[in-house]
Amino acid sequence: MSKILAVGTVAFDEIITPFGETGKILGGSASYISMAARKITDYVAVVSVIGNDFPDEYLQKFTDRQIDISGIEKLENEKTFYWKGRYHNDLNKRDTLATEVNALAHFNPVVPENYKDAEFLMLGNLHPAIQKAVIDQMKKRPKLIALDTMNFWMDTAWNDLMEVLKDIDILIINDEEARQLSKDYSLVRAAKIIQNMGPKYLIIKKGEHGALLFHGKDIFFAPALPLEDVFDPTGAGDTFAGGFIGRLAKEENTGFEAMKNAVICGSNLASFTVEKFGTERLESLTKEEIINRLQDFINLTQFDIELI
Amino acid sequence: MSKILAVGTVAFDEIITPFGETGKILGGSASYISMAARKITDYVAVVSVIGNDFPDEYLQKFTDRQIDISGIEKLENEKTFYWKGRYHNDLNKRDTLATEVNALAHFNPVVPENYKDAEFLMLGNLHPAIQKAVIDQMKKRPKLIALDTMNFWMDTAWNDLMEVLKDIDILIINDEEARQLSKDYSLVRAAKIIQNMGPKYLIIKKGEHGALLFHGKDIFFAPALPLEDVFDPTGAGDTFAGGFIGRLAKEENTGFEAMKNAVICGSNLASFTVEKFGTERLESLTKEEIINRLQDFINLTQFDIELI
Repeated sequence: MSKILAVGTVAFDEIITPFGETGKILGGSASYISMAARKITDYVAVVSVIGNDFPDEYLQKFTDRQIDISGIEKLENEKTFYWKGRYHNDLNKRDTLATEVNALAHFNPVVPENYKDAEFLMLGNLHPAIQKAVIDQMKKRPKLIALDTMNFWMDTAWNDLMEVLKDIDILIINDEEARQLSKDYSLVRAAKIIQNMGPKYLIIKKGEHGALLFHGKDIFFAPALPLEDVFDPTGAGDTFAGGFIGRLAKEENTGFEAMKNAVICGSNLASFTVEKFGTERLESLTKEEIINRLQDFINLTQFDIELI
Repeated sequence: MSKILAVGTVAFDEIITPFGETGKILGGSASYISMAARKITDYVAVVSVIGNDFPDEYLQKFTDRQIDISGIEKLENEKTFYWKGRYHNDLNKRDTLATEVNALAHFNPVVPENYKDAEFLMLGNLHPAIQKAVIDQMKKRPKLIALDTMNFWMDTAWNDLMEVLKDIDILIINDEEARQLSKDYSLVRAAKIIQNMGPKYLIIKKGEHGALLFHGKDIFFAPALPLEDVFDPTGAGDTFAGGFIGRLAKEENTGFEAMKNAVICGSNLASFTVEKFGTERLESLTKEEIINRLQDFINLTQFDIELI
């Protein structure tokens, strides 16, 4: 089975939704990515940075699940990255109430020796120069490099972003980010423009409206599972990315058909994350629950039509 | 092959989009429904009302396609229903610039004798009391009665709407209408509430975000085909309804698996309608184009996953 290296934030989130508030809880892109991937496949490591206020019990959430955290650096003179946000009533929009960059401002990623040959590299949303620095540390070119980014880097680090996009295989962003990156409103045209920037594959996440996978002229679509209630959307995108790359690593296949299954797997895991606050649902999630819900996705989307 | 009776407006539309303006063209729910259904199946009739200004060449668009128009009544002292609207830049919203009800205010639907035994009845968006009056004229209960409605009737004719909902099998509305009808934001909960109002089946159309089919605990989802450009969304929902009921009539089957195929067929035809103004694209559409695009829908949505 292949190894996955997940790079991103391990952080504190404080979340307010119409259903309640969390106080400071475990958050960060690398937390969701690694926990989701580890639900699917065996060898997952995290590269990240934390501060002196990060509790051991949170680190234990990783080690209890046999996620390799030798690449998580603790900065003794810094605090941990912290984000606070409030979701609107329909949960489709959120306002950031506070962001404290803290230790993340000094993040100098060091890939552990035993993961320098990882076949799958998932670069969570970070400064594109940091993402590039991770790629450069790999002993050999991974079989697949996936990258997430956001509008902020398009506004403040465009050239660095263009550089790292040339080195990756698949970009995973949301619809708003795809429109800003391509400067085109049509997602189909945006996908062509973005593929010309480097990544041969592109996933555009549309939140409750599902996700599109593009490769050349091929398009695949996975819906989000219709749920009675979405409780907390935080981490859904990173969970999707973790489930996606987890499935590819498990299948040891990076072809388009394998990617379709990986997109379904990512959507599957994300549908759990939104059922509770933070990583709570992901932590308790069982293999049986994942397989049962995969059947829900099959029922939701598969049909058998005659061409009449 | 079964017969379809389509009831709704045959009208003038005047459409302004970022791509141009149409002047007065053929529009109306029954125009789109019948033309779409007729692409799929053979026996389709329209019940509607027009005024003295309605050109013969527009009626000929129906008769050229062997659509039975003996149920279209011409009121010699009235003008034809007219709607003018302007779409916003992203084509997801539109403003109504003018509505002239005209002949529609005097619409007294009369079902032609040879269609009183139609197995499939599609009631386009009209006053619910008029929709009910059509049902009451049928010689025997159709195999399937489908109905479209809108917010306006929920605001102005709630009791009549509740009455007719008890008599139908499937309601076809958009997400905003489903939320207003059920008074619930969650579409999954809305679907349960609406099924308790009468229809055992419900389709919720989400425009560019696809359509959901509900029946008891079963849910099926069909995406809209991702297109480089949407040119004019007018009539997409009615085209969907026409393609949907056309497929059911062709298959002579109203089970859930047949409905899945019918939802795909409706989405397929709607993806053509939005490519040009009004009914233009639907008019020129060939069987071969429909089958090719059905393959696009299969590629877009079908996967073959192992439960690992």
